[in-house]
Amino acid sequence: MSRPAHRRPECHKINKDLFVLTYGALVAQLCKDYEKDEDVNQYLDKMGYGIGIRLVEDFLARSCVGRCHSYSEITDIIAQVAFKMYLGITPSVTCNNSSRNEFSLILDKNPLVEFVEELPAGRSSLCYCNLLCGIIRGALEMVHLAADVTFLQDRLKGDSVTEIGITFLKKRDEKKYRRKK
Amino acid sequence: MSRPAHRRPECHKINKDLFVLTYGALVAQLCKDYEKDEDVNQYLDKMGYGIGIRLVEDFLARSCVGRCHSYSEITDIIAQVAFKMYLGITPSVTCNNSSRNEFSLILDKNPLVEFVEELPAGRSSLCYCNLLCGIIRGALEMVHLAADVTFLQDRLKGDSVTEIGITFLKKRDEKKYRRKK
Repeated sequence: MSRPAHRRPECHKINKDLFVLTYGALVAQLCKDYEKDEDVNQYLDKMGYGIGIRLVEDFLARSCVGRCHSYSEITDIIAQVAFKMYLGITPSVTCNNSSRNEFSLILDKNPLVEFVEELPAGRSSLCYCNLLCGIIRGALEMVHLAADVTFLQDRLKGDSVTEIGITFLKKRDEKKYRRKK
Repeated sequence: MSRPAHRRPECHKINKDLFVLTYGALVAQLCKDYEKDEDVNQYLDKMGYGIGIRLVEDFLARSCVGRCHSYSEITDIIAQVAFKMYLGITPSVTCNNSSRNEFSLILDKNPLVEFVEELPAGRSSLCYCNLLCGIIRGALEMVHLAADVTFLQDRLKGDSVTEIGITFLKKRDEKKYRRKK
């Protein structure tokens, strides 16, 4: 599988409902395959990672974003450009710590759960949209940024908002640390 | 799971690549789960059926299509309105028999395989896009039309075009036949 050389830019949108229902079928299949919610979450993240590393090239080409100089700037691009481009929504961004490497994306609405009222029975730990975390993680890795990406809050679990946490891992510090050992 | 009462009509499109890659992940997962291509095909069809029966209500509400008076008219609606609305393409339609209940949708391009160059190794009988057949079948059933929907040709299998065959099953004739027995 690989991207064809000539793509047609004129037809880059499709109907959301088809995507949302197909995603629901994917999650349902994984719930069938894996008994533990943690395994489903991990698998969705892994799948998302694979999607993210493929999607980022296209994103950079089409979004024309320039070089970012801070984690804050990168998170804003994810929220305001990437989410808008791919899901048609713009989460708000908050910074969660003073060293400015932990951020949250707050989703007022989440198109992926448009047909979902609640988590499937017995699946209270399921991160239904964990594919999104994997996509962000994969895309960031392709631009040489390691990050932990997880759901911190989820409306499907009764939280008042849906919140994705992004923690940028400071690779340089890690290297220094390793050298010291 | 059910459709919420109030939906927002303004945001009905999402980026195609995200859908296409997510669909690819779904097919890959099913190939992992089922050894036989036939089982994967059947499962994709079944999943599509579930999507079709949910999608049709939304389609009828948004497309404002009127009552159809022939199978030919219905197939035209599928090609020119439904495919356009959901996948952004318009297949051409041919009628394949004199009793005018067998039709083909000819897809010049197929967005679902945009990232796929060939079928996965050892998967020569896979109907990669069989979800589409299931969706059409499910949607038709919801408007009380029984149909067989299958891929007749597939570019991924080396055919020159991708062709979906729709055979409308004449329920009335069947009933008459049963009565005679």
